[in-house]
Amino acid sequence: MLNLKGDERLDYLLAEKLRIIQSPSVFSFSLDAVLLARFSYVPIQKGNLIDLCSGNGVIPLFLSSRTKGSITGVEIQERLHDMAVRSIEYNGLEDRIKMIHGDIKEMPTLLGHGKYDIVTCNPPYFLTPAKDQINANEHLAIARHEILCTLEDVVRVSSQLLKQGGKAAFVHRPGRLLDMVTLMRQYKLEPKRLQFVYPKQGKEANMLLVEGVKQGSPDLKVLPPLYIYNKDHEYTPEISEMLYGK
Amino acid sequence: MLNLKGDERLDYLLAEKLRIIQSPSVFSFSLDAVLLARFSYVPIQKGNLIDLCSGNGVIPLFLSSRTKGSITGVEIQERLHDMAVRSIEYNGLEDRIKMIHGDIKEMPTLLGHGKYDIVTCNPPYFLTPAKDQINANEHLAIARHEILCTLEDVVRVSSQLLKQGGKAAFVHRPGRLLDMVTLMRQYKLEPKRLQFVYPKQGKEANMLLVEGVKQGSPDLKVLPPLYIYNKDHEYTPEISEMLYGK
Repeated sequence: MLNLKGDERLDYLLAEKLRIIQSPSVFSFSLDAVLLARFSYVPIQKGNLIDLCSGNGVIPLFLSSRTKGSITGVEIQERLHDMAVRSIEYNGLEDRIKMIHGDIKEMPTLLGHGKYDIVTCNPPYFLTPAKDQINANEHLAIARHEILCTLEDVVRVSSQLLKQGGKAAFVHRPGRLLDMVTLMRQYKLEPKRLQFVYPKQGKEANMLLVEGVKQGSPDLKVLPPLYIYNKDHEYTPEISEMLYGK
Repeated sequence: MLNLKGDERLDYLLAEKLRIIQSPSVFSFSLDAVLLARFSYVPIQKGNLIDLCSGNGVIPLFLSSRTKGSITGVEIQERLHDMAVRSIEYNGLEDRIKMIHGDIKEMPTLLGHGKYDIVTCNPPYFLTPAKDQINANEHLAIARHEILCTLEDVVRVSSQLLKQGGKAAFVHRPGRLLDMVTLMRQYKLEPKRLQFVYPKQGKEANMLLVEGVKQGSPDLKVLPPLYIYNKDHEYTPEISEMLYGK
């Protein structure tokens, strides 16, 4: 039985034939999460995957359709963690996705170093602004700003959690590319695959996807660009397939 | 009167209505130089521009069609420097382009620190291999491998030559993106514009163009991708226009 709270609704993840609890005032997933879940390498048959800053569990839910491995999600906000747990139960995925309510910075101590094959993270994008400029909605502010975890926390923790040769995939804004790759190298996550996402042809990129390998050797590939919309402002076939399936 | 030596030919730079001396056995410019000359910001009316690792002077020649400023080219190989000088004379551009035969590492001492508005460089791309693997043709080996100057030399010297707020534009392989941007930040050339070049749709990038501002503030933009060929293996309109004009 489903218990929706406040302004929550039960949305569809059409391509995955799953459903997810969302709330306009608390948290709704963005295209960024869809693109990251699709970009990340995923072992098909088994493996330990962990998603940091999971929000309402959207990336663990997406990943569950691509792997039979064990997926852990970590979310610091109790309200979002609770949404994720209820969505996972609603989809009957409790045996494959485990949600942890906690701070990602404590996960290496709690879960152990070098235990994971895959880490994903769609982190808060924005540097912490002055207090009076922060989103007055605390849930959205924490999800969007580097209030409770910085990009450096994300990269450091990801590296600590990964086995040697394990992969970390992140999504971020192009303006943070240099910080991202510098931190990745600093924490021994060698960037191997980089992809830019453009809103449409002729526009600047507004998203980057990057995958690093723990203690990998330098060999960066820049994948073909992804476009969100075509000239008629419709989703391109690639994006449409990610959202709605084939 | 034109004096062509050995297997040299007088090729056309069609879009610029200029001609250039090239030689299959010594040096011929590549599309990389065309793209860099087009990518670089250029002051229209005046300014001091300098091109490092100039080869046969192709980038100074290209730039001369976009600026009335003063252009300097630096080339360490006497044979290539000589080709550049003869091309500049043939085009009647001696008053606007000056070629220096010398080592880029000595230019800050020779020319002074902080005197230039624009630096361009299409550097040797390849790390120095074992001696028996180096191109047996010394001219091509020096132009292609980091034998006489490394990427770090290029970035350091560029930064030294530039005024505060001056711009440096480089072309390189995507596999060196991380080295490039790390060195640029190290030498106070903040990357501001980044563009990837793809051989055609659906392929990985095979070239990167990057522009940094001396002592600029962090704010990277990733420009729309450039494609070289269309599906029919013809140049795309953008590339065709660069090569042949409108």
